Amino acid sequence: MTAPGLFISFEGIDGSGKSTQARLLADLLRDQGRDVVATREPGGAPGAEAIRRLLVEGDPARWSAETEILLFNAARRDHLERTIRPALERGAVVVSDRFADSTRVYQGVARASLRPLVDRLHDLVIGVEPDLTFVIDMDARAALARGLARRSGEDRFEELGLGFQESLRAGFLALAREYPDRVQIIDGARAPDDIAQDVAGRVAAHLA
Amino acid sequence: MTAPGLFISFEGIDGSGKSTQARLLADLLRDQGRDVVATREPGGAPGAEAIRRLLVEGDPARWSAETEILLFNAARRDHLERTIRPALERGAVVVSDRFADSTRVYQGVARASLRPLVDRLHDLVIGVEPDLTFVIDMDARAALARGLARRSGEDRFEELGLGFQESLRAGFLALAREYPDRVQIIDGARAPDDIAQDVAGRVAAHLA
Repeated sequence: MTAPGLFISFEGIDGSGKSTQARLLADLLRDQGRDVVATREPGGAPGAEAIRRLLVEGDPARWSAETEILLFNAARRDHLERTIRPALERGAVVVSDRFADSTRVYQGVARASLRPLVDRLHDLVIGVEPDLTFVIDMDARAALARGLARRSGEDRFEELGLGFQESLRAGFLALAREYPDRVQIIDGARAPDDIAQDVAGRVAAHLA
Repeated sequence: MTAPGLFISFEGIDGSGKSTQARLLADLLRDQGRDVVATREPGGAPGAEAIRRLLVEGDPARWSAETEILLFNAARRDHLERTIRPALERGAVVVSDRFADSTRVYQGVARASLRPLVDRLHDLVIGVEPDLTFVIDMDARAALARGLARRSGEDRFEELGLGFQESLRAGFLALAREYPDRVQIIDGARAPDDIAQDVAGRVAAHLA
């Protein structure tokens, strides 16, 4: 982004601990006196949250991959207009639990031939990337167990099983090779406070 | 469409009588022994109907034009996959109350500069047109009065006022000039049965 603020996203499979890390980073930056907007995808604005409910609830076969990509982009456009861009323009730090990389990885894993559609839609209606993206990486089996234990009622993706989670993990790791300047892999198999300290150090380095 | 069936859409401003005419044509074709699927947009499939509720209810400023275009395309893609395409492939006649022309006209009127986005999204994720489109044309003031009298709770577009309805009418008339082989203007200021007879004659001519 070229706005005065800083846009940071957290990515990874469900149960990886990325939401916890996004929250810990937001808390830390607030304690440092910064203007911080903590948000998430899909969602992050009232309209986008309504679209989220269509995406995360119900039967895994409720939407085709193409319809799903359109819904994710609709939610993202709303999130960008109503939450992210206004925050960045006033100079805030935006910390988002997921952004466009999730669509690249989830849809790309569902069917590799979808990636051109994902990319064209992103260019057409989104067109921005975070300044910094942290992929919280961990063993898919452990993450899946943690994700399902939450019983959030938002289990549409977890229900697709371990093989799918393992492909997602590989997809997130591939992102770091595709966007080496922006995407950093964080070892998620450590105590939450240790991971948070690692992330905080990298953000400080970016700001310096 | 290149499928064996026939795809007919009805377009026009709210209150023009297009929904009545779509129903009358579907009834007539069924009476003639044809396999008919009567449907509508936004909606026409369970997922698309859920997206419809996001589009037609709530504040007129709930969505930006760009987000709205994405939601319409998501609903249309679902409608096409789950309802229209399967029906056409088995040889049915699909009669739809609105299709992509509504997005062209509504969004084009809202902001002319949106038309390229509308067209690019249509090419990317929809890519089909009806075989035959009837625009039920009538005075915007009379149509608006009729539309609001219904108190359907789906008044998000009607609430934008008479000037907007008049621009929409002009937009639908312009469609017939843009797609002369597909779009036919029907005078809606007549008794419903007379209009239905006119439409039926044109469908018979197309089938012959």
